[in-house]
Amino acid sequence: MKKKTTIYDIAKELNITVSTVSRALSGFPAISEATREAVIATAKKLNYSPNRLASALKSGKTYIIGVIVPSVQAHFFASIIHSIEEGLKDSGYRVILYQSNESVENEINGVKTLLEAQVDGIIASMSLETEDVSHFAEIIKQNKPLVIFDRVNINLNVPTVTLNDFKAGYMATQYLIEKGYKNIAFITTIHQIKIFSDRLEGYKKALRDNNLAVLEENIILGGLSIKDGRFGASKLMRLQNKPDAIIAGDDFTALGVIKKLKEIDETPPKIGVIGFANEGFSAYITPNLSTIDQHPNQMGSECAKMFLKMIQQENPYQNIQHIVLDPTLVERQSTGSSI
Amino acid sequence: MKKKTTIYDIAKELNITVSTVSRALSGFPAISEATREAVIATAKKLNYSPNRLASALKSGKTYIIGVIVPSVQAHFFASIIHSIEEGLKDSGYRVILYQSNESVENEINGVKTLLEAQVDGIIASMSLETEDVSHFAEIIKQNKPLVIFDRVNINLNVPTVTLNDFKAGYMATQYLIEKGYKNIAFITTIHQIKIFSDRLEGYKKALRDNNLAVLEENIILGGLSIKDGRFGASKLMRLQNKPDAIIAGDDFTALGVIKKLKEIDETPPKIGVIGFANEGFSAYITPNLSTIDQHPNQMGSECAKMFLKMIQQENPYQNIQHIVLDPTLVERQSTGSSI
Repeated sequence: MKKKTTIYDIAKELNITVSTVSRALSGFPAISEATREAVIATAKKLNYSPNRLASALKSGKTYIIGVIVPSVQAHFFASIIHSIEEGLKDSGYRVILYQSNESVENEINGVKTLLEAQVDGIIASMSLETEDVSHFAEIIKQNKPLVIFDRVNINLNVPTVTLNDFKAGYMATQYLIEKGYKNIAFITTIHQIKIFSDRLEGYKKALRDNNLAVLEENIILGGLSIKDGRFGASKLMRLQNKPDAIIAGDDFTALGVIKKLKEIDETPPKIGVIGFANEGFSAYITPNLSTIDQHPNQMGSECAKMFLKMIQQENPYQNIQHIVLDPTLVERQSTGSSI
Repeated sequence: MKKKTTIYDIAKELNITVSTVSRALSGFPAISEATREAVIATAKKLNYSPNRLASALKSGKTYIIGVIVPSVQAHFFASIIHSIEEGLKDSGYRVILYQSNESVENEINGVKTLLEAQVDGIIASMSLETEDVSHFAEIIKQNKPLVIFDRVNINLNVPTVTLNDFKAGYMATQYLIEKGYKNIAFITTIHQIKIFSDRLEGYKKALRDNNLAVLEENIILGGLSIKDGRFGASKLMRLQNKPDAIIAGDDFTALGVIKKLKEIDETPPKIGVIGFANEGFSAYITPNLSTIDQHPNQMGSECAKMFLKMIQQENPYQNIQHIVLDPTLVERQSTGSSI
């Protein structure tokens, strides 16, 4: 297959800088009309991707899309952003980002800011605080596509891309049972977000299916962070009927659990530990951390596809789809695997 | 001190949702004029921060600022973004983000996108590819503040916030020498970015000041990644005159170095390893990683201050300042410290 023409080829052909080509193609004001015409002619001659050229020339749409995430600091969300960008690249869309920092006030400001910035649509995952979702209604009112991923809210009838979190919770628990652990605890968040309650339900169902008791004292409802993991582990290890395994609501919390267990000489896999999200550090800590992979790349790419489909419809919401991805178990040392 | 009034207090007083208060204050279209007036009156009554109220009411400016970073996946940039947001919060500014993914084409699109989105100014760090900086000139032409941090370019005469990278390179090298290492290698990037060449110069100066030879074979110019670290370490360990310590251009590269050294039974601190950036994982790997802290929080907060100062001046560029921060050494196990 012939290599795709890039803006570098166009620049070389015309003996101008890559900057000039890019700015000419995207209609930057400082470029002269003569240069712009030469660049477009050369782009056509060299078969530069017609999609990108078309989108650069076409008017009306801004070809900007907004993405709202709770935090870019989580590897999970950063990976999703990256795959959304990848998925939209060939269609000429550029992505601007907004962090809610888990605050509903920020999230409301984010929707407003992105709409003011004239985005053609929004892809978002909700903050832990979000209950009232009426700020998202403004996007729908403007007939612009809205796709919600991972953290969804049943009161908002829009397309979604999520993980099967019930299955994720079930899978983590069933795996620990198969590894020989018998008294399994769960540290999770107190917030009423569907993904977290689904995981907890999956945990309970797996225990029941294996004729193990669901013990109130084994479920720690607090926050999700390294600190919360340390705190939860301390609390669990002081129980009379001490758990022999701990499921943590995310990998940061699991890291806190491991640090605490090492300090008190209960280093995993003596006590089994499993997290959620397969963060960047999880393969590198000691013992390295078993976790549930939530496939952020696939999630981001499905969001991009969904958006592109919606933007081509007169009514973006005429056929609302819900895509549910399957989780994958990653076995490592913290549950006794030797990988 | 009396607790600051929040939008929650206003919501409680009026018996409406927090969403409504926030949207009323920020002029969301769906809110009725009566509600908006009630909210503003209550905000004043409860002494809600006059700065925020003023900015919500004041017209003209969009109170949106754009931040361009190479990647949000690096903890360093994610931390800077967070501290920029913190630094601008009380002035009512909202931050939208753009990733260049180390591509100059994306960076050009980023400037264009943010200007189209009517931002009041831009804070940016350049991609590894950026040589021609003319796309940034458009921001200056529009008389909007532009602050460049960390990765600067001498061809662009705008305010900057940087780390003393020469000192950082010198500090890492001097520290290894004091720890007893005698043959110190350096793995860094081939790209001509000032921060990286400054660090390399600092390394060379420290060697010379200690009467140690600067050996060409000890300087690996490639990329910066876990993979590049593994590759560089392999190459260095095959030298006849094997180094006894390795400085890696960033913590990801240092992680690759450590993984390789463990595989060939040269686990640090047997061979000393130090990185740059103090990434989130660096304290948690085994052995944990000595590194140079580049103070992203301070860097972000200085950027925010600089922007706020510039936005208040008729000519933002009337008094161009360059702030240079000092690096800090973080001693951990990979160089033989027991912390």
